[in-house]
Amino acid sequence: MSDTAFAPAYFEKNRAAILESWFELLRLPTVGTDPRHLGDCARAAAWLKIFLKPLGFEVEILTPGSGIPVPVLVAERPGAKKDGTTVLFYGHYDVQPEDPLSGWQTPPFEPTLINERVYARGAQDNKGQVFAFLQGVRSLIEAGEDLPTLKIVLEGQEESGSSALNDLAPILRQRLRADVMMVSDTSCGPDNRPSIVAGLRGVQHFTVTLTGPAYDLHSGVHGGVAPNPAQGLASLLASLHNADGAIAVAGFCDRVHPPTDEERALARQGALTLEQYTQEIGCPPAGGAQALDAVSRGSFEPTIEINGMHAGYGGPGSKTVIPSSAVAKLSMRLVPNQRPEETFAAVQKHLADRCPPGMTLALSEVCVGAPGFRLPLNSPIFRLAADVLQQMDTRGALFRWEGASIPVVAMLQHLSGAAPLLVGFGREEDKIHCPNESYGIDQFVRGMTWTTLMLKALA
Amino acid sequence: MSDTAFAPAYFEKNRAAILESWFELLRLPTVGTDPRHLGDCARAAAWLKIFLKPLGFEVEILTPGSGIPVPVLVAERPGAKKDGTTVLFYGHYDVQPEDPLSGWQTPPFEPTLINERVYARGAQDNKGQVFAFLQGVRSLIEAGEDLPTLKIVLEGQEESGSSALNDLAPILRQRLRADVMMVSDTSCGPDNRPSIVAGLRGVQHFTVTLTGPAYDLHSGVHGGVAPNPAQGLASLLASLHNADGAIAVAGFCDRVHPPTDEERALARQGALTLEQYTQEIGCPPAGGAQALDAVSRGSFEPTIEINGMHAGYGGPGSKTVIPSSAVAKLSMRLVPNQRPEETFAAVQKHLADRCPPGMTLALSEVCVGAPGFRLPLNSPIFRLAADVLQQMDTRGALFRWEGASIPVVAMLQHLSGAAPLLVGFGREEDKIHCPNESYGIDQFVRGMTWTTLMLKALA
Repeated sequence: MSDTAFAPAYFEKNRAAILESWFELLRLPTVGTDPRHLGDCARAAAWLKIFLKPLGFEVEILTPGSGIPVPVLVAERPGAKKDGTTVLFYGHYDVQPEDPLSGWQTPPFEPTLINERVYARGAQDNKGQVFAFLQGVRSLIEAGEDLPTLKIVLEGQEESGSSALNDLAPILRQRLRADVMMVSDTSCGPDNRPSIVAGLRGVQHFTVTLTGPAYDLHSGVHGGVAPNPAQGLASLLASLHNADGAIAVAGFCDRVHPPTDEERALARQGALTLEQYTQEIGCPPAGGAQALDAVSRGSFEPTIEINGMHAGYGGPGSKTVIPSSAVAKLSMRLVPNQRPEETFAAVQKHLADRCPPGMTLALSEVCVGAPGFRLPLNSPIFRLAADVLQQMDTRGALFRWEGASIPVVAMLQHLSGAAPLLVGFGREEDKIHCPNESYGIDQFVRGMTWTTLMLKALA
Repeated sequence: MSDTAFAPAYFEKNRAAILESWFELLRLPTVGTDPRHLGDCARAAAWLKIFLKPLGFEVEILTPGSGIPVPVLVAERPGAKKDGTTVLFYGHYDVQPEDPLSGWQTPPFEPTLINERVYARGAQDNKGQVFAFLQGVRSLIEAGEDLPTLKIVLEGQEESGSSALNDLAPILRQRLRADVMMVSDTSCGPDNRPSIVAGLRGVQHFTVTLTGPAYDLHSGVHGGVAPNPAQGLASLLASLHNADGAIAVAGFCDRVHPPTDEERALARQGALTLEQYTQEIGCPPAGGAQALDAVSRGSFEPTIEINGMHAGYGGPGSKTVIPSSAVAKLSMRLVPNQRPEETFAAVQKHLADRCPPGMTLALSEVCVGAPGFRLPLNSPIFRLAADVLQQMDTRGALFRWEGASIPVVAMLQHLSGAAPLLVGFGREEDKIHCPNESYGIDQFVRGMTWTTLMLKALA
């Protein structure tokens, strides 16, 4: 059997058991941002420990002394060679909230197989991709293959700031030393072409509340007299961008480095056309600074996005009130060289300077977050990975600079000293973070194949 | 017994029965804008018919052939003199939605008496004020007093555009002919001083929806690429006003007539000071065009207010999405001479001209509404009403130009040929349209007193 056929064959032989295990993991509603799901997160960590122990891993479940104790799982399995390569695998078992529930066609935490796709919150991001890695490891161990030393970190707060893992970082520094850090939390290129992520944006986020009257007012009696927080918030949020879509916050973009010509050219290879994008998303790529092309905007430029905005009446018909307050959820994506403390301070100052008269501005749920990064294209690990992906797909790998963030990657890179290797098998149709998230069986098997080939290459 | 002591004495004697009846009416959740409450509206109309029949009224409950059939009650009782004055009383039994329910300290539809105030949705607006009028009429009839010819119109869609009454208007023209139109849906001046409303603003409202992606997107993957409807809507809403708070919609204010010096001076008499306002409302009167004083803004200027604004995530923590769509509820207050069709068209054009690229704008739940009006201060009916109010309060009546709207008043004025007489006994602390709406027993009794004195003066 060829190396590339090994994982698919293993999957076919064990399909029922693998799906059963995967579904067990997906049934746990591990919304790490919501304290009500703390128990589900603990159950997921325990479930993963039980999966890893029989494979020869030493497994420990850690929680920090402060904050919400969403557990972090740390596992290690010695390699065949005494001084061989050490591979650190990072993944997360937490998921985005299932909201809006009404958008789901199947229950978000009851995985459902339809046309060889598994529908569930977390089916792809990141439980599906993590579980493909774990099954890849298991298949190699069952086949008696030599493996490199494997270290695994699985956390439950990737979607909400990785606070437990950040708190634990100092005591994990020695234990996580590694040569390569594998992460499967990214996507393929167009036409399902494998891709290596050479850069990610950082992320930071917060909630802003603008308060005016002590209670909702009659908008006839008070209209034109009382300040309207909905109106004030709309103005504040509108002020974050210029008319051409460019970020208008002073100082926010000061440290942004443009990409090299090679990076820009390679990024274009992996991009959807305008027609493909419009077809996929339902609208043209008309967001962001219109002076730049869409690929540059998504790969190499920072953003400030409104993720939520709520004030006053939202039911049927009309209710003529001036709402007492208005709330928005904002997140910023950062590119390499931008410093999260600086960009957050710039946005904070921008808002404070423009707080409308008569109203009070408050920031809460602040996550200053982590910076983005870009990796050198000609590193040995990238060359090895490109070879492996060429075996899987004769077209070879694309390099991509994803707009999304895995904030913890920059932190773990720093902590472990390892070279990050981000290869994932997501697709746009997976609809991660949205209702009806799903992951294809074919994508799952490709993840397993990648895992087996790469670990053998590193052994 | 003096004329002014008659109604208070009647109330004290019949207190338990009056409260019981009033509470029955308040228990019906007559949210006229919500089709789920159609049955409650029909029950309220039936309840009012049963109240009026024994008093000698011919009562008919009408519904138009089209639209939501929220019933309109029309009643008539011949006066003592054959060619005497005909008084038309207008009121509404519908109420604003109780939302947000969490803000209520007692159930909104279970009236609760605390410290001589009745807490319930509609306790004041308008069931409380209507019921004070009806009890005033009843007390006079029981005392055998001569009355003018009385016509009563009670509708269930005042808060949502009066569509049934507007539809029925053509067939009601003859039946509603009158000399004076009494309405009790307004407030006293500061320090509880009685006031005659010499002007009201008109109102129009609609819902605007901005749609971008076909589904909520990951704001990392798509940030800076996909258009963000929350951001687009914030910009659209912000564009409605200039930085100084003045309306920025071209053509919207073209027909606005400034008030006379006398009107402006009288309006100031009835105004709260900045300190009183800030104390009452919890923030300074910092809304509207800052080039004008607060009294002018609230009495004589139009507004465009955001009553609601909703997009994306609003739960705890963060969810990094680009929402698929964003919705706002807007209402405009109009001053005399502005034409609702023109102002609506101006706002519609303003929004359409600025629809952000890649997104779709839709207007729905449109109520083009009714114009505002201002009445001449030296009319005979105003002089008579001022005399009556002087009997009730030696300070005499204030004239007020309220910022709120009773859109149907302009329509009924036109239909009936009657001179509008708007005297109500609301106060800011009643919190109409808000959680914990209430009405004081003293205010209710003053409404009864006003009714008995004025109807005797008109008999």
